[in-house]
Amino acid sequence: MLIDASYTVPITKVTQGVDDACADDAVATEEPLEIRLTYGPVHNRQTQNVAVTMRTPGHDAELAVGFLFTEGIIKNQEDVLTAQHAFIACAENRENVISIELQPYVVPSLGKADRNFYTTSSCGVCGKSSISAIRTVSAYAGTSAHEFSIEADTLYQLPYTLRHHQEVFDSTGGLHASALFTSDGQLLELREDVGRHNALDKLIGASLNKKWLPIADKVLLLSGRISFELVQKAAMAGISIIAAIGAPSSLAVQLAQDFNITLVGFLRQQRFNIYTAAHRIKTAL
Amino acid sequence: MLIDASYTVPITKVTQGVDDACADDAVATEEPLEIRLTYGPVHNRQTQNVAVTMRTPGHDAELAVGFLFTEGIIKNQEDVLTAQHAFIACAENRENVISIELQPYVVPSLGKADRNFYTTSSCGVCGKSSISAIRTVSAYAGTSAHEFSIEADTLYQLPYTLRHHQEVFDSTGGLHASALFTSDGQLLELREDVGRHNALDKLIGASLNKKWLPIADKVLLLSGRISFELVQKAAMAGISIIAAIGAPSSLAVQLAQDFNITLVGFLRQQRFNIYTAAHRIKTAL
Repeated sequence: MLIDASYTVPITKVTQGVDDACADDAVATEEPLEIRLTYGPVHNRQTQNVAVTMRTPGHDAELAVGFLFTEGIIKNQEDVLTAQHAFIACAENRENVISIELQPYVVPSLGKADRNFYTTSSCGVCGKSSISAIRTVSAYAGTSAHEFSIEADTLYQLPYTLRHHQEVFDSTGGLHASALFTSDGQLLELREDVGRHNALDKLIGASLNKKWLPIADKVLLLSGRISFELVQKAAMAGISIIAAIGAPSSLAVQLAQDFNITLVGFLRQQRFNIYTAAHRIKTAL
Repeated sequence: MLIDASYTVPITKVTQGVDDACADDAVATEEPLEIRLTYGPVHNRQTQNVAVTMRTPGHDAELAVGFLFTEGIIKNQEDVLTAQHAFIACAENRENVISIELQPYVVPSLGKADRNFYTTSSCGVCGKSSISAIRTVSAYAGTSAHEFSIEADTLYQLPYTLRHHQEVFDSTGGLHASALFTSDGQLLELREDVGRHNALDKLIGASLNKKWLPIADKVLLLSGRISFELVQKAAMAGISIIAAIGAPSSLAVQLAQDFNITLVGFLRQQRFNIYTAAHRIKTAL
């Protein structure tokens, strides 16, 4: 069964206290996706369930590979032998299990998958240790290009371009988006999902397929707020500029600062805030 | 060290392409919280880390107890002996570890904590199994009161009341809120967090303290979109009416339908959509 990214449900529409009775509304599809990993030498292959995420169906292989990469479980696109939906007993679920087979020579860092990076530091649990833990697992974190930049006037346009291309959001109002743009404002790639972390994992998975990493010369646009987790994933991919329509959290700002990533928040018509590494945004003054 | 719910960072404010140079901006604090559980008979106590969540500091004990309850790990407030921040070696982290001690006679359902409810069903991974798994662990899910209701005119007012009381959001624009209201529109309790699931866990933790469960005669208002996870947590607490300012996902609608919970989305000035159990919303027609 193929699952669509949205579907229609019957609703009661109420306007000024009065029922408009039988109406229809499109809602964004949310279904679990189980990521199964097969790895190990040819004579001793093992299969393990590494995660279940609630996601909007579509681009599942990108999501799974992007997740494995941003969580530090695999290092390269070349680690992956095959990525496909798994056949399982219950026919209805076929689309909800994705099976990733690694090359026999690859040893996945599965300890890292436990609770993202949070518990890997010897210092226990604090923002500082969460940030330093990322350094140890990423080849690209902290490598963002110093000289890459974008004009403020170009930046203002990105949300319009994004919205124009957000097909499922338009019908449901229920999806987060992540997109990559060139420095002259061209949309390169866009992914949507009910989970903001999934939208970014899909985008980074697609970028891995295109051999774009480290993504040092493209602008990442996020449709919502910026949490630590999103900056972490962007840092893993070597992204230099993150712009978001929403607000950043404290730890998102700290992480961007530490990794010399430019962080722009509250991107609106004719205004925005630069939280870190302002040198990459070209303004008139 | 006490951590505030927001703090001020230096930013560059850009308006119409021109730097306003040195400005300040308040951002919502995001820090990891580790939930440690101590349980077992007096002669054989054990301590285990059950979760790390990225949260906004404040109401940490409510968050931890709410989380343990909505994940089905504990059944009652009475299961909890003490809930307090743990002293650990690194002074900076003191506020980021919360230690929950259970009564010696309580056996926590720790298998449930693995991946929420998603992998507990024998059918594998699909929306249907995610929903049915919840029935097996909750005392209140499916018990929402048939006769509880609210007037459409009262419903319209709730977002205004919420916003008026959202202190940290006003300064940062970065927080989700969960709140409980009476059927005549009085705000009873409000919690905020960078994570929407944390805001709801805090609210349910506070409700457990007040012996409000099952919360069958109060309206839950959510500041954002409605995912499966939020309806799941509400169902665990026996909530009858969920209203949200944002859109619901497909699985959120299905879960509400199955548990006879009224789900209202896109709550705006003078209009909203009812997705399920419309009989609890009183309209003129």
